[in-house]
Amino acid sequence: MIAGPCAVETAEQILETARLMKLAGADALRGGAFKPRSSPYSFQGLGKEGLVLLAKAREATGLAIVTEAVDEASLELVGEFADVVQIGARNMQNYELLKRVGRLRKPVLLKRGLSATLEDLLLSAEYVLAEGNPDVILCERGIRTFSRHSRYTLDLSVVPAARSLSHLPIVVDPSHAVGRSDRVPSMARAAVAAGADGVMIEVHPVPGEALSDGRQALLPQQSADLIAQLRAIAAIVSRKAEALL
Amino acid sequence: MIAGPCAVETAEQILETARLMKLAGADALRGGAFKPRSSPYSFQGLGKEGLVLLAKAREATGLAIVTEAVDEASLELVGEFADVVQIGARNMQNYELLKRVGRLRKPVLLKRGLSATLEDLLLSAEYVLAEGNPDVILCERGIRTFSRHSRYTLDLSVVPAARSLSHLPIVVDPSHAVGRSDRVPSMARAAVAAGADGVMIEVHPVPGEALSDGRQALLPQQSADLIAQLRAIAAIVSRKAEALL
Amino acid sequence: MIAGPCAVETAEQILETARLMKLAGADALRGGAFKPRSSPYSFQGLGKEGLVLLAKAREATGLAIVTEAVDEASLELVGEFADVVQIGARNMQNYELLKRVGRLRKPVLLKRGLSATLEDLLLSAEYVLAEGNPDVILCERGIRTFSRHSRYTLDLSVVPAARSLSHLPIVVDPSHAVGRSDRVPSMARAAVAAGADGVMIEVHPVPGEALSDGRQALLPQQSADLIAQLRAIAAIVSRKAEALL
Amino acid sequence: MIAGPCAVETAEQILETARLMKLAGADALRGGAFKPRSSPYSFQGLGKEGLVLLAKAREATGLAIVTEAVDEASLELVGEFADVVQIGARNMQNYELLKRVGRLRKPVLLKRGLSATLEDLLLSAEYVLAEGNPDVILCERGIRTFSRHSRYTLDLSVVPAARSLSHLPIVVDPSHAVGRSDRVPSMARAAVAAGADGVMIEVHPVPGEALSDGRQALLPQQSADLIAQLRAIAAIVSRKAEALL
Repeated sequence: MIAGPCAVETAEQILETARLMKLAGADALRGGAFKPRSSPYSFQGLGKEGLVLLAKAREATGLAIVTEAVDEASLELVGEFADVVQIGARNMQNYELLKRVGRLRKPVLLKRGLSATLEDLLLSAEYVLAEGNPDVILCERGIRTFSRHSRYTLDLSVVPAARSLSHLPIVVDPSHAVGRSDRVPSMARAAVAAGADGVMIEVHPVPGEALSDGRQALLPQQSADLIAQLRAIAAIVSRKAEALL
Repeated sequence: MIAGPCAVETAEQILETARLMKLAGADALRGGAFKPRSSPYSFQGLGKEGLVLLAKAREATGLAIVTEAVDEASLELVGEFADVVQIGARNMQNYELLKRVGRLRKPVLLKRGLSATLEDLLLSAEYVLAEGNPDVILCERGIRTFSRHSRYTLDLSVVPAARSLSHLPIVVDPSHAVGRSDRVPSMARAAVAAGADGVMIEVHPVPGEALSDGRQALLPQQSADLIAQLRAIAAIVSRKAEALL
Repeated sequence: MIAGPCAVETAEQILETARLMKLAGADALRGGAFKPRSSPYSFQGLGKEGLVLLAKAREATGLAIVTEAVDEASLELVGEFADVVQIGARNMQNYELLKRVGRLRKPVLLKRGLSATLEDLLLSAEYVLAEGNPDVILCERGIRTFSRHSRYTLDLSVVPAARSLSHLPIVVDPSHAVGRSDRVPSMARAAVAAGADGVMIEVHPVPGEALSDGRQALLPQQSADLIAQLRAIAAIVSRKAEALL
Repeated sequence: MIAGPCAVETAEQILETARLMKLAGADALRGGAFKPRSSPYSFQGLGKEGLVLLAKAREATGLAIVTEAVDEASLELVGEFADVVQIGARNMQNYELLKRVGRLRKPVLLKRGLSATLEDLLLSAEYVLAEGNPDVILCERGIRTFSRHSRYTLDLSVVPAARSLSHLPIVVDPSHAVGRSDRVPSMARAAVAAGADGVMIEVHPVPGEALSDGRQALLPQQSADLIAQLRAIAAIVSRKAEALL
């Protein structure tokens, strides 16, 4: 369970979220310090200052830190502060960045591009693996389709497909895909039921004041209820897995 | 829980499947007598004879019958024999057929077209409702996208979206979407976890001998195990629903 | 060159359009009498009355008539009045209708469904051909993709692809795809340059007063200018074809 | 008219192609020295050596050089040797690279991502423009859809759409989209007829021996014939533009 805000905004915001997520049973804290945004005029993140705040939140709670790198310079900093380096969907085929991440000794969370096939995703993972870094975690976050009721179409069928083609773990980020907080719990439950190894959700203490993507963030209490449900579903799924042995 | 073969093939096949599905805890039996196939040279179904066999299976087991109508003539027969009339994805915008179904006094299972938006689906349901038939069940069965690891992309986000826009129940057919039996259970579980009101799965006593779509059919025992899992997940999802009251 | 309004509305509208299209150099007149609409509450066409008006326009101008059939009943009427029977995108996989059209002795214009592959389209044509009707004209009218600047994405690459797989002629309908009259001429020119055997465009004497799809209709004068351009481009394309002999 | 091989391979290959393209009437020479490939095990380009060969070809022919940069290091080299810096589809949302290109004093050819909307493309151009570089050329090269007869679906409707939203010129690369040389001329003609400001095509003296994407490369003579046709179509399109004044 990875939870946290889209972007690190202030010391209070990230510390409060981290404490509540720890109580809720999360394993890791997410939060962007470097934000790749479609428009150059949107909030681009706090940069190094954001990483320092994430490190303080780790000290205070023991949660692992997952945060994104977007280029050589940010990768150097992220590699220093984070426990897991995230490569976003827009950089999934930024092969030079992938090679650099492959020379790092940190786990990598590699998000599927908006129009990447599973084969594309596994080949991008291969760029990291081929440089000597064996710890790649795949992440489904929705693909571009004609469908309009959802921001992107969460393609959960990639979960069993990835499991039958690769040993790499796969997690699901439903928040970016559905783009509306009221539909996140349904899709998080579906992800775990489909067999995902983890779920990454956006949580914000005051979603209405978020500097990016507030509409899709859960309240801390909602995420605590959700995590309890997800653990119950995971138990059913794994019971079945055992039964097959 | 709706289960059964893609097509009705023989008296033995449909009766045996029906008995095993009843034992497995299914509520309804599916099986096509009229099959709309992409190629005119593929098996097109047994026609009226298939409906007679379905009716015998109902007598023997008490299971409700769900089967497809493809035009005026088949609709007349299906309306006579079936408990639920299915309108397939390829006919979702066959408005003349929808109007006729709207004048029937039977529930209708309306499958989402391969490239239909949720709005298109609800407007097609409206063709049925506007003629006076209030019993429309929506059905997600996968959409066409660029993704190649799955025959169609099962769009489970349509489940919470439909619930927030319409009172109509929604079921999910994962078998046609994934096209491979080993990935059907994952997606059936995900459908229930996403909040679907039901699941329709293909089951065949000897999948390798099926006249259509055998690759995606579960064995009866697999479907029994799956149904037990789905009921456990449904209980968790509905506990949450109660908690919100 | 097939031109005319989306729907037949009044005797004046269709006669005036027909006369102007004849002058502009068109070969056939399009106009719907039976309109399959996404919503049951939209204008559904004049029915038989519309066919009678189209026949009068043919008498007055000599233009061939292309109009759509949507079910058994309308097909009987359309078969009586029209020179070419159109099967719309939503009915491309209405196989019972295709079989009936296959038993007619009239050319059929078969529109590609919104999510049909070229293989699907050719197999649907096969339903008509297998019943003994050899005169099938394929029609590209746009597919559903994530792209939002156009109502549908006109897939012109299907033109050379169809030519390399089938002897059937292929025409293009840019009007429905782009959905905006100012972008229709560009795509009509592109269709001819790609090697299409014909183009079908919507024309209305007063687009702002059209009962359906007025935003995409050209004015008669615009379509006359366009037809002249298309003939010039066709000459270049066919000079090249000759050069290859 | 931009023509040339997918990748620079040898001195002979690039010089011969350049001389023939000059004769054929091309304005610029394309050829990759840094190749972003889906698999880390495919040919990745000659690097700086490739740029030197391109510069020699420019000296010998006067053709302008268009070649791709994939990261900070390659951008520095490409900026030194090329006349136009290409940013590929996979890097269209590599915002850090776009900002660096924005600080260069060279025109940029920005390819549309496989799943980028026109809005995404214009916002990526904005990253370059906002840094002070006004010379951005947009490039359509096909999008990911369900269609399987073509590697990607060339979305020519983006040409008139871009023209109505932006002053930036737009060119089309049909070679990567269709992926088969026999269908490239049709789509190149369609691009010009749709109003594109230019066309970029792959040409190789011996396509069967190309180290990447040989199946889509035209022979030099084929490209010479095509360029003549394209100029004739461009004349018709612009006559029409003048007629509207």
